[in-house]
Amino acid sequence: MSVSEQAVYERQGFGQALGIQGRIGLLIVDFVNGFADPAVFGGGNIAPAIARTAQVLEKARQRGWFVAHSRIVYADDGSDGNVFSIKVPGMQTLTEHAAISAIVPELTPVPGELVVRKTVPSAFFGTGLAPWLTQRGVETLLIAGATTSGCVRASVVDAMCHGFRPVVMADCVGDRALAPHEANLFDIGQKYGDVVPAERILAL
Amino acid sequence: MSVSEQAVYERQGFGQALGIQGRIGLLIVDFVNGFADPAVFGGGNIAPAIARTAQVLEKARQRGWFVAHSRIVYADDGSDGNVFSIKVPGMQTLTEHAAISAIVPELTPVPGELVVRKTVPSAFFGTGLAPWLTQRGVETLLIAGATTSGCVRASVVDAMCHGFRPVVMADCVGDRALAPHEANLFDIGQKYGDVVPAERILAL
Amino acid sequence: MSVSEQAVYERQGFGQALGIQGRIGLLIVDFVNGFADPAVFGGGNIAPAIARTAQVLEKARQRGWFVAHSRIVYADDGSDGNVFSIKVPGMQTLTEHAAISAIVPELTPVPGELVVRKTVPSAFFGTGLAPWLTQRGVETLLIAGATTSGCVRASVVDAMCHGFRPVVMADCVGDRALAPHEANLFDIGQKYGDVVPAERILAL
Amino acid sequence: MSVSEQAVYERQGFGQALGIQGRIGLLIVDFVNGFADPAVFGGGNIAPAIARTAQVLEKARQRGWFVAHSRIVYADDGSDGNVFSIKVPGMQTLTEHAAISAIVPELTPVPGELVVRKTVPSAFFGTGLAPWLTQRGVETLLIAGATTSGCVRASVVDAMCHGFRPVVMADCVGDRALAPHEANLFDIGQKYGDVVPAERILAL
Repeated sequence: MSVSEQAVYERQGFGQALGIQGRIGLLIVDFVNGFADPAVFGGGNIAPAIARTAQVLEKARQRGWFVAHSRIVYADDGSDGNVFSIKVPGMQTLTEHAAISAIVPELTPVPGELVVRKTVPSAFFGTGLAPWLTQRGVETLLIAGATTSGCVRASVVDAMCHGFRPVVMADCVGDRALAPHEANLFDIGQKYGDVVPAERILAL
Repeated sequence: MSVSEQAVYERQGFGQALGIQGRIGLLIVDFVNGFADPAVFGGGNIAPAIARTAQVLEKARQRGWFVAHSRIVYADDGSDGNVFSIKVPGMQTLTEHAAISAIVPELTPVPGELVVRKTVPSAFFGTGLAPWLTQRGVETLLIAGATTSGCVRASVVDAMCHGFRPVVMADCVGDRALAPHEANLFDIGQKYGDVVPAERILAL
Repeated sequence: MSVSEQAVYERQGFGQALGIQGRIGLLIVDFVNGFADPAVFGGGNIAPAIARTAQVLEKARQRGWFVAHSRIVYADDGSDGNVFSIKVPGMQTLTEHAAISAIVPELTPVPGELVVRKTVPSAFFGTGLAPWLTQRGVETLLIAGATTSGCVRASVVDAMCHGFRPVVMADCVGDRALAPHEANLFDIGQKYGDVVPAERILAL
Repeated sequence: MSVSEQAVYERQGFGQALGIQGRIGLLIVDFVNGFADPAVFGGGNIAPAIARTAQVLEKARQRGWFVAHSRIVYADDGSDGNVFSIKVPGMQTLTEHAAISAIVPELTPVPGELVVRKTVPSAFFGTGLAPWLTQRGVETLLIAGATTSGCVRASVVDAMCHGFRPVVMADCVGDRALAPHEANLFDIGQKYGDVVPAERILAL
């Protein structure tokens, strides 16, 4: 983003900080094998983001934060094909038992962690995620995952709309290409959530 | 976007076309005085986008397409402040009778056109827009409005999630800064909807 | 409900208590002039339910509980007519400035209380109510209003789905006819929320 | 319902007919083994409702109507327990591979039919059902299933809210106890959808 463009946002009052308050949740978006693999939907800076997220997940488990994961899962028979799978036909290969739809080994959920299946970008749309967080009194939602310009961005916007304070850990989100990664972190920081380094969270 | 980054998306199968089919709706997002005014939330290429949208709106009325508008409207007493208005405090000045929250004169709704009030980016979230379109059998949703990187992008993603085929008219959407405008059109075209010039629609 | 039917529900494990915990919200559903007037949508036991609710509202304000009201409001030009208004055409007379759509004088909202406009039974569907409660960390939602078999029942079911613990105050909800009132309190108590006398709440 | 109570509804203009129009969908709610078995969540008139629904399903397949089924499915590890499973703890025994959560053999889905998993009463809440129907241009939604006073009622209300015309086939829905079955058919017919005998549909 150019200096002059940042100035426009600043002059109009965008980009205030939300801060961390109340009970904390951690949402890990679509860190599945297919998004770790550059030959499928991966590439870019996704691999280091997964490694960094493993540290945050360990912290969350130590601290008892509420942990949720999302996976893209389409039906084996193609019955739930949708507009997203028309734009990106390969999505429908992410079926329940396909290796590419499984959460990466470093981040395997443990009992009690929520795993939501979805067929759209946002982890909130058409899932039980918001009610699950609401029932547990979560106010701040830490967000990691892939891709920054896709399912992460959509989940951040929805987290905010549902009344949660989204905090995106910049080195825990990744994308197959860096320009969209950066452009979307800019939008998020200006309008939807806080963008912080993971070390800020690891130090809590 | 660099050539190499576009290649990544192409290799992974993104960016297929949806096409226009079935009954058509037109959604005009937040083209209100405050987003037309560079001293409030406007600037960039928003003014020409409004002028171009006026032509599409005329076409829609001639053809009997279903037309919906959205406005950001917060309560006078601040009771509905939310996470979005913490990030961007000026949003709460867009109250029901404030001049800046009124739809621009060129696009004033006529009886029978839906006007949805919202306090979040997407015109679908927490509104009756999706049911209204569903009841009328709309399949393809043309989208105009401001800003490309904000309420337009969020509305496009939700349109897709709700089962509509979003078609963004590139010269009918605008933003206060051009880099986010371009970056978000790229994301939309790759993953969420078709991006076409308005002339394609005016020729229908 | 006959004794034998209650026994079926008991044998299958329905009807457990939720209890009151965490931050408390109060939702007052559609206690507007038109539902207080037997010549419009009122009758039955609605009048005493309004009187009792006024006591609970006073308590809520004293205690600082989060208070939300709902109103049915259709557009003046009929543009937002829906399936509900096909089933019950008179609903579309509840326009913004119609006296029958105004909240009854005994329960007039004060600044800071949320008022949601809706065109469907549930106060949650297509509104910002759930995010508003979530952002404020509400866990238990007290519910009053009209009608028990209509907008109250729908709001209770949605409150539960969104992750809140619904507590219906039996003498603060009313209906135009008593058999549906009783039948719906039975369903609610068995499956969706606690049903308690208002005195239980006034004693908190 | 007494004659005088029906008169109140009639005088206030409730109970207009919606009719059948446009593309047709068939939703079969929770006809799984556990709701067919009186020792689990079944009983009452559920068995004959299943038999009658099998005839409608055959008709739907012949005619190419869009068919969707719902199942209640909770996670094996209890991680998605919610307010509904606090009210009715036995719900959490309906896990993915439990025999009681499988759709009854008479109604086994065929490829291309949507199956939505849910943990709340409505087949629409937190699922992809509404977008799936919207994308396919469905306007009228035929509804069968169990129980009339629970998941059927909730699904009918949500179908209406999402913009579909719900048509409940009275002899294709059942409940563990007959009084709630009848009371809820009354509410549905007055406010949310049409209630017709299945023969009306079989004759289409």
